[in-house]
Amino acid sequence: MVSLLTDYGLEDGFAGALHGVLRRSAPGVAIVDITHNIRPQDVRSGSQALLRAAPYLAPGAVVAVVDPGVATPRRAVAAAAGELVLIGPDNGLLPPALDALGGTTNAVELQDNGYWLASPGPTFAGRDIFAPAAGVLAAGGGIADLGTPIDPHSLERLPTPVCRAHEVVDDEQYIVEAEATWVDRFGNIQLAAGPGLLPPTSGALVRLGQACWRARVVRAFAELAPAELGLFVDSYGHLALCVNGGSAAGQLGAREQDIFLLSACPPGGAS
Amino acid sequence: MVSLLTDYGLEDGFAGALHGVLRRSAPGVAIVDITHNIRPQDVRSGSQALLRAAPYLAPGAVVAVVDPGVATPRRAVAAAAGELVLIGPDNGLLPPALDALGGTTNAVELQDNGYWLASPGPTFAGRDIFAPAAGVLAAGGGIADLGTPIDPHSLERLPTPVCRAHEVVDDEQYIVEAEATWVDRFGNIQLAAGPGLLPPTSGALVRLGQACWRARVVRAFAELAPAELGLFVDSYGHLALCVNGGSAAGQLGAREQDIFLLSACPPGGAS
Amino acid sequence: MVSLLTDYGLEDGFAGALHGVLRRSAPGVAIVDITHNIRPQDVRSGSQALLRAAPYLAPGAVVAVVDPGVATPRRAVAAAAGELVLIGPDNGLLPPALDALGGTTNAVELQDNGYWLASPGPTFAGRDIFAPAAGVLAAGGGIADLGTPIDPHSLERLPTPVCRAHEVVDDEQYIVEAEATWVDRFGNIQLAAGPGLLPPTSGALVRLGQACWRARVVRAFAELAPAELGLFVDSYGHLALCVNGGSAAGQLGAREQDIFLLSACPPGGAS
Repeated sequence: MVSLLTDYGLEDGFAGALHGVLRRSAPGVAIVDITHNIRPQDVRSGSQALLRAAPYLAPGAVVAVVDPGVATPRRAVAAAAGELVLIGPDNGLLPPALDALGGTTNAVELQDNGYWLASPGPTFAGRDIFAPAAGVLAAGGGIADLGTPIDPHSLERLPTPVCRAHEVVDDEQYIVEAEATWVDRFGNIQLAAGPGLLPPTSGALVRLGQACWRARVVRAFAELAPAELGLFVDSYGHLALCVNGGSAAGQLGAREQDIFLLSACPPGGAS
Repeated sequence: MVSLLTDYGLEDGFAGALHGVLRRSAPGVAIVDITHNIRPQDVRSGSQALLRAAPYLAPGAVVAVVDPGVATPRRAVAAAAGELVLIGPDNGLLPPALDALGGTTNAVELQDNGYWLASPGPTFAGRDIFAPAAGVLAAGGGIADLGTPIDPHSLERLPTPVCRAHEVVDDEQYIVEAEATWVDRFGNIQLAAGPGLLPPTSGALVRLGQACWRARVVRAFAELAPAELGLFVDSYGHLALCVNGGSAAGQLGAREQDIFLLSACPPGGAS
Repeated sequence: MVSLLTDYGLEDGFAGALHGVLRRSAPGVAIVDITHNIRPQDVRSGSQALLRAAPYLAPGAVVAVVDPGVATPRRAVAAAAGELVLIGPDNGLLPPALDALGGTTNAVELQDNGYWLASPGPTFAGRDIFAPAAGVLAAGGGIADLGTPIDPHSLERLPTPVCRAHEVVDDEQYIVEAEATWVDRFGNIQLAAGPGLLPPTSGALVRLGQACWRARVVRAFAELAPAELGLFVDSYGHLALCVNGGSAAGQLGAREQDIFLLSACPPGGAS
């Protein structure tokens, strides 16, 4: 079983090439496309998508490629965690998922032990290095066949998304200051804050820069009136903002990595 | 075999999560992605896409999810028809396909007989309820394992697309007044009218609101001059409008659910 | 094993219908989606994508459909090359890939020897003719079961992309005049020129119409400063233009089929 997450898109045949390479080395392998539509070269966004997918991945290999440093000396690595071996560039993409899977004690730097594809040019490591590495595993090999052991602590890491509980800003007390980790296709805005930080009230004040909105605390989108803003615990256990029948990100003019402030809604609060 | 139709898109990993969940419960299952690009929360459009796909689905389970009412008390259901079991929300999405497959005499409301996934939040029923239900079937279970029998006639239904033959509007006699059921990626406009309503002439007058165009009755797009409007029987047996090398919907400013009037083209008719 | 390349998109269920049809005739078949997002009816672009994919395809059948002449008398064909049988319309789509696979000596015009699907309308040959043909092969049949032998030299061909080495234009000597064969999702511009035509200098002058830019010859995108233009040998062995962290096509206002001129950068050359 091999799962794939990349920024290759579905227009160009890049993702199809990974499938072809995998099936040439392990014809019967089952392949799961987590997504190939990570924004081009957005390693942070890719690392968050991989983290969300981690608990639902089928046991086996995972090829993850968002790789602006392709063909530079950045390392190509594989790291085992739980029932999975994650394969990709050493640029921060893998560690959040590895942590969520229980952490890794076994990582290697990929080396060409005969399994890399001879390539007309070095800028498609997914096809020429990472997918062949997964092919080795799918054909029965182990992580030790892929390269040389490295210290798992040496893997590059990205900054952790901002989440500061009980923050005071401009003399106001907030429940949490939290980064937008993800805007999904529906326009829902996921925040880097767990369900324990949900305001204990029926409403919340949501602040982004100098703008402020009132959100209703709900469990389902359909509890809201059309275009009403809601705050809910999303299907990954994060606080998130939504609009019924519309896009919260569009309505609030918000983007990933924006920093939100949340407070419990005071009686007679702003609307 | 499990087929999937959703409005999850391919950007976020939602569809990938369904694949992962299915492969965790039934590793060898074959999965067909009918489409994941139904317009967000457009149940009508999803029901039409499922209806079109129905005759070409491989025997097995079908998970269909366009679900604006997720996490509300709307029912989650499974219904058998022909060689298929359709699984999804009870909001009108499934019945047109069920009817096309010969109708259902066996439906259940999904209940958590131990197969639902424990979830950090209730808004991703596809991952936590519907895909696990398909996994039960893929692993050899039956529809009775999924929940409690319900009356198939109790399933919610959407309005049938408008199709009125031999209609008189503004004192004019038309062959048919028909709703646009589908605009495809090529801009072809499918109408809710069967091949028996094709004008018996070489041309047709096509009216939308106060605008009127002449269309040529053709069998193939390439019979038309560039940018010429054509009326043809599409590959699903519906009357449809096309433009050679262009988009009929774009050229006519038409959208799904618009109501068209068709008449046989009179001698010396408008162009 | 069946690989698919089409302009059907992923919105409408066209690609899903191919999967369904294939799995109905050969339930255990492995399917690789090369891409379904070829620009609608762009046969040239599809033929280039198929050519790029060819060396990485798993042995078996390939269904390729970009088919503006569907339902006209254009031929439907299958042609064997190497370990593959390519199936599609006879409109120029297949020959570049067939050539790259070593050429074909065995081609047939598809005929309905009982395997075509009865269809409500003739405009979806992928579902009704081409996928069923691949299903015959996946179920153990041979190319001779698909139709009547034809002369492989009779297959339609598109013009070869422009590549003229050592060209003189406006009294200037250029290393090569080359057509843009492909703009990928990252905005990289692939040219119809091989690595032997890379300027032997650290820079190149790139001319498009009357506009001219200086590009740095690099091996990896990350060698460039942000927004700097680079010239490199891409992963298919073609000369290509890139911008670090951006789109070369966007920055240069370039499109597929534009004609570029390249020369070695003179000392003190334009920037």
